[in-house]
Amino acid sequence: MTRYEFKSIGQRLSNWGRWGADDQRGTLNFLTPQVRLDAARSVRTGQVFELSIPIGRDGPQQADGGAVGRINPVHLMSVHPGDFDRPDGMVGADDYIFMPLQAATHWDGLAHIGYDGLLYNGVPANSIRSMDGAKRHAIDQSLPGVVGRGILLDIARLHGRDWLAPSHPITPDELDEAVKQQNLTVRSGDVLLVRTGWRRKALVEGWHGWMETEPGLTVDCAGWLSEREISAVASDNWAIETQPAGEAWIPLHCVLIRDMGMTLGENFNLEELSEACAADGRWDLLLSAPALRILGGTGSPVSPIAIR
Amino acid sequence: MTRYEFKSIGQRLSNWGRWGADDQRGTLNFLTPQVRLDAARSVRTGQVFELSIPIGRDGPQQADGGAVGRINPVHLMSVHPGDFDRPDGMVGADDYIFMPLQAATHWDGLAHIGYDGLLYNGVPANSIRSMDGAKRHAIDQSLPGVVGRGILLDIARLHGRDWLAPSHPITPDELDEAVKQQNLTVRSGDVLLVRTGWRRKALVEGWHGWMETEPGLTVDCAGWLSEREISAVASDNWAIETQPAGEAWIPLHCVLIRDMGMTLGENFNLEELSEACAADGRWDLLLSAPALRILGGTGSPVSPIAIR
Amino acid sequence: MTRYEFKSIGQRLSNWGRWGADDQRGTLNFLTPQVRLDAARSVRTGQVFELSIPIGRDGPQQADGGAVGRINPVHLMSVHPGDFDRPDGMVGADDYIFMPLQAATHWDGLAHIGYDGLLYNGVPANSIRSMDGAKRHAIDQSLPGVVGRGILLDIARLHGRDWLAPSHPITPDELDEAVKQQNLTVRSGDVLLVRTGWRRKALVEGWHGWMETEPGLTVDCAGWLSEREISAVASDNWAIETQPAGEAWIPLHCVLIRDMGMTLGENFNLEELSEACAADGRWDLLLSAPALRILGGTGSPVSPIAIR
Amino acid sequence: MTRYEFKSIGQRLSNWGRWGADDQRGTLNFLTPQVRLDAARSVRTGQVFELSIPIGRDGPQQADGGAVGRINPVHLMSVHPGDFDRPDGMVGADDYIFMPLQAATHWDGLAHIGYDGLLYNGVPANSIRSMDGAKRHAIDQSLPGVVGRGILLDIARLHGRDWLAPSHPITPDELDEAVKQQNLTVRSGDVLLVRTGWRRKALVEGWHGWMETEPGLTVDCAGWLSEREISAVASDNWAIETQPAGEAWIPLHCVLIRDMGMTLGENFNLEELSEACAADGRWDLLLSAPALRILGGTGSPVSPIAIR
Repeated sequence: MTRYEFKSIGQRLSNWGRWGADDQRGTLNFLTPQVRLDAARSVRTGQVFELSIPIGRDGPQQADGGAVGRINPVHLMSVHPGDFDRPDGMVGADDYIFMPLQAATHWDGLAHIGYDGLLYNGVPANSIRSMDGAKRHAIDQSLPGVVGRGILLDIARLHGRDWLAPSHPITPDELDEAVKQQNLTVRSGDVLLVRTGWRRKALVEGWHGWMETEPGLTVDCAGWLSEREISAVASDNWAIETQPAGEAWIPLHCVLIRDMGMTLGENFNLEELSEACAADGRWDLLLSAPALRILGGTGSPVSPIAIR
Repeated sequence: MTRYEFKSIGQRLSNWGRWGADDQRGTLNFLTPQVRLDAARSVRTGQVFELSIPIGRDGPQQADGGAVGRINPVHLMSVHPGDFDRPDGMVGADDYIFMPLQAATHWDGLAHIGYDGLLYNGVPANSIRSMDGAKRHAIDQSLPGVVGRGILLDIARLHGRDWLAPSHPITPDELDEAVKQQNLTVRSGDVLLVRTGWRRKALVEGWHGWMETEPGLTVDCAGWLSEREISAVASDNWAIETQPAGEAWIPLHCVLIRDMGMTLGENFNLEELSEACAADGRWDLLLSAPALRILGGTGSPVSPIAIR
Repeated sequence: MTRYEFKSIGQRLSNWGRWGADDQRGTLNFLTPQVRLDAARSVRTGQVFELSIPIGRDGPQQADGGAVGRINPVHLMSVHPGDFDRPDGMVGADDYIFMPLQAATHWDGLAHIGYDGLLYNGVPANSIRSMDGAKRHAIDQSLPGVVGRGILLDIARLHGRDWLAPSHPITPDELDEAVKQQNLTVRSGDVLLVRTGWRRKALVEGWHGWMETEPGLTVDCAGWLSEREISAVASDNWAIETQPAGEAWIPLHCVLIRDMGMTLGENFNLEELSEACAADGRWDLLLSAPALRILGGTGSPVSPIAIR
Repeated sequence: MTRYEFKSIGQRLSNWGRWGADDQRGTLNFLTPQVRLDAARSVRTGQVFELSIPIGRDGPQQADGGAVGRINPVHLMSVHPGDFDRPDGMVGADDYIFMPLQAATHWDGLAHIGYDGLLYNGVPANSIRSMDGAKRHAIDQSLPGVVGRGILLDIARLHGRDWLAPSHPITPDELDEAVKQQNLTVRSGDVLLVRTGWRRKALVEGWHGWMETEPGLTVDCAGWLSEREISAVASDNWAIETQPAGEAWIPLHCVLIRDMGMTLGENFNLEELSEACAADGRWDLLLSAPALRILGGTGSPVSPIAIR
């Protein structure tokens, strides 16, 4: 019996070996061609939403909230039209970005979190090198990535609020209630998008303290995700799970990423999408949200596309 | 009469004002909900391809070929599992990227190129600032970006080659020939993907000289793209157009981006996709290729998704 | 008569053409071999002080104080001992820095500030390019840089305070008073170090608001510096001059850098040095504070060495 | 008996514990106030040389020679005069640098190299963290750093050559010969500067292959440095020691840094200095070459100042 509850849950829900000893894709294995085909066929209007927050200096990584040394992205011009004086009159502009891969809207890959020395599928955590990043489970190995059917559970709306209360713990029962109220059928391979409204809170009240007391999923939701063969989960807060989380800092991360091999999406913008879904009562969509092909990466920025 | 032919072509094909004086999306305006709906409905197998080249140190930006000061992306670990010694045994890994937005597979946005002091739709080129990038036509303004029907014209295969000869000029007639041989119907809003095979050449022969003598579209192709209301064009070379290009360095860039308001995709990987399309004779697909939401950016890395 | 007083002062004190139309070193021209020889000979104890603040994440560039988009330096490991598994047992560590050149202790070079379209010596401000930085007056052109006799005027101590009051304006008369009380003789070529104590305030009270209300030199001090043929001036605040400054944001910068061709040092740490000087009543020293040889740079981080 | 000769040498010359179990400065401890006083007093003309190579894109880190993932520095403008439109007419320019700390002229600190799991003075190599760099022996701990008497041994000139032959091994006997021919007296605390001429070779022939076959010191020179209480050694090649080095990749690094606690300077520019010294036959100087105060750093760029 382990000292931490999340490790018991992790053992119970473990997907190690499920898709082979060398598997690096984890629950993305639930995304089959049929799943994608069905999702494409379910598109009804051709309406599209892009679900990322801006990549720039006014992001979540504030001095009193930036986690593990993250900063907000820095964008610098490397070429400016004023640099040119060509006979053909052409001018150009070019630029660079310097950013933590997880600064804004992003996926946490399977090399991002482990415990007791191991990553998903028993890969030693110290197989990650400074020199070239993650040797196994790098984010480029997830490609083509999260492409399939997405379902949006709007928990803030379930409670009739713009955003959930600080540290509100979203339980499996609440997920079921939202499924029921939103008339959804959950299917194998679905990508779960959870709206807490926490992004709206940031827009209205600022980023101060945004990370430390966020509403989010409880560690028990891991079982709910497992039973339904969810391929990935994303939310509009910084860490999916409620903060503080109880017995450990980010226990749900540990179970989902390390034991179940599930990639997590964070800092999504679900505001406009939720309005559109609420307007016509349809909460499922075709989701295309691949990571960038960053060799050795532990995560990646993403521009998630929802077509409905 | 202008001294440069490309400027005459540009004036003839200009889309300035077509979608309003404040328009920042250019030919992306051809991407309507109906276009996306039809594209989603055309998905047949649920097969998916991600069309980017790796983001890492062995990319196209070599010392003797890197354009305008671009380097290959630099990926650095900021957090390593070895940093941790927590009671709960959790370990993590986190990382940063430093890269030119156009180092690998990317979109050139409408702030990337102009001439005679102006960008698309008459926006002054010097409205771009070092301090905050592009004030108008920034890449984040393109979002949700390139989402619609993609058609792949495999010009290398048309000529029975793994890759086209250096500086091979792809003419409108060749595009028509490929359309015919590939049994395609070109529709308004289509995203044109052009395969030159030049990526395969890089994999086999290395990057040396890859940019200076690439095969690609001639400036006359601008009219072909305009007549068919193509929303965007992408290729597997570094600059879409043939190099050298004749009277100017990148005249097709000037016409497409500055006069027509068309975003260009470069460094795409079309190898596996072309094999699959050749196998079943179907060359159209649902394409989702949004830029990252980089405020003020002139371009963006992208992981283009093709579902067929 | 110009509308701004600082422009009148600047015209009066202008060094344009003084050292030739192509001069890029400005008042550094006062640093002659004789000046350096005398400074070396004045060393009495061999005691040494390094005058920089730490380069790291807890620096002056805070969210509510960072000027013009500066951030605090970001230090990232690129190689870690854990990466190695060599027969000879060797391990290594390597790292990168990403920083604004002016994030911590630094020199402002002659390309950093101009007005009315011109830099020092009439160089057009737009000769600076994004592509390769400053064409003239780049910081590498200042090398070997600030090497000569330094004199420390401790204005905080003059007023019997740990640090001067917010926005305290240091006048020429105060500089004279300090010279007198500290028994100094000011000589041609001297590098003036001014202690406001504002760094100590940051250490005690934090960085919040550190920039907006700093004590510092008034624009009238430009004449004092000019008369004495001061080669460079540095201080322990962020901008040398008092903030707010009155009629313009940083008028002393404009006069010193643009009109007089004087490089400015900012964010110096003068705490330990001032204690040592106060202890034995000697306030002059040999100063070696070259910039880094950054091609095209507008400024540079520096580790100023004072030997006494 | 160890399997590697360099480990035997290292054990024999070890300075572990010599300056206490917590010492982080190693042979910099030979730099006393008296040493610095004597060096200052030996200044004769006030002539000054700055000994760094340019920090920019055309540096030693070429695609076929860059070691351990280093690139050449990238300099980007963050603010440009064209960004401004102020009533007072002021314009500014600001910039960033992104660089490996060891890309150009630099010091290797005591956290840079270890073997058999340990750094200098028995500090575990894995005490270095990605999250915050070197916990002990960080480069900021070296400050005020290398300030003292420098002696230049021009081995290229000794052999009557512009630069030594590839892989030329500089032996202790050659160092003695140069001392004798250059009429030098070596003193405790001296900083040894060794000229191989390899920089001149790079300027004339380019950087290709510059690292793999450099002339440099043999591992036996460690004893020579130890006997004379040299405080630091620097050279105009990339790794001080001859390449290839024989039984290990960089054995002299291992002995000097890990066993003796000596900081190494690399990529120095000794060309102009050597010409001046040859002209008047004086090869000693006052050297001021502090690292930047980079918290947690393993090394640092430097602008070494020689005053003679």
